[in-house]
Amino acid sequence: MASHENIVLKPIGVVKTAAVGNQVKDKTRISQIVIRDELAEALEGIDDFSHLFVLFWLHEISNENQKTLKVHPRGRKDLPLLGVFATRTMLRPNPIGLTLVELVKAEGNVLTVRGLDAFDGTPVLDVKPFDSWDMAKDAKVPEWWTKLESEKTKPR
Amino acid sequence: MASHENIVLKPIGVVKTAAVGNQVKDKTRISQIVIRDELAEALEGIDDFSHLFVLFWLHEISNENQKTLKVHPRGRKDLPLLGVFATRTMLRPNPIGLTLVELVKAEGNVLTVRGLDAFDGTPVLDVKPFDSWDMAKDAKVPEWWTKLESEKTKPR
Repeated sequence: MASHENIVLKPIGVVKTAAVGNQVKDKTRISQIVIRDELAEALEGIDDFSHLFVLFWLHEISNENQKTLKVHPRGRKDLPLLGVFATRTMLRPNPIGLTLVELVKAEGNVLTVRGLDAFDGTPVLDVKPFDSWDMAKDAKVPEWWTKLESEKTKPR
Repeated sequence: MASHENIVLKPIGVVKTAAVGNQVKDKTRISQIVIRDELAEALEGIDDFSHLFVLFWLHEISNENQKTLKVHPRGRKDLPLLGVFATRTMLRPNPIGLTLVELVKAEGNVLTVRGLDAFDGTPVLDVKPFDSWDMAKDAKVPEWWTKLESEKTKPR
């Protein structure tokens, strides 16, 4: 497959949450990921992990927003104008969300997780177990990130 | 968008590497990610991060393999048969790869990275900066994972 060809995905499930608006950013919030029935078997053994990466489709981003190349982090004009790939903005060419969550419970085709910042009805593309290969203890981040973090807001 | 609808993605770029076969698993290996020219601007500021997540399309997985629901980790029959979502196998309904890499250099539309386990020509879907929100220091993993790790092989 050449890099210019289109790729077609089918969601593996959907997010269920009572949170609305900015409430989804509350990292203590519980959500459900309801996996398609026919894929339930693919969850076997997942509950031996405490944390998962969830890949989801930011379905509220329009085609027009996918053309955005630069943003101010969190829309803050006092922070530098940056390329979208240097931020976690939802406005990206392929609006795929990636969030590390805590797995609370796996039961049948439903994963109960803590800390998923996705709206109710969000299509889920994949879930992957988290392990120490996914971690960089000595990672360097920019000053603008540290500034946002020090304000105790989610810098994305 | 309902969870049963298809999602269409267009790669943002492509992996370039001299590594072939299992050489791509060598975490010291250097690869390039060549971003589409028209998206080069979206990289501005990325070099202030030391680590990135790369999301890529496992383009060598056939449709048939996407139907696999259970695997033995690394094909090892001495390890339990697990759901694909409990492993990092390439055989998943949506074969998206996710790897944490070290950013060595960003120049024009080319990212030079260390530790990307993707073949030459792999379509890249997204790059995201890594920060401490992506890290779970106290993460729990299963015994089979610890066993593989203790053998100093990559447990995926």
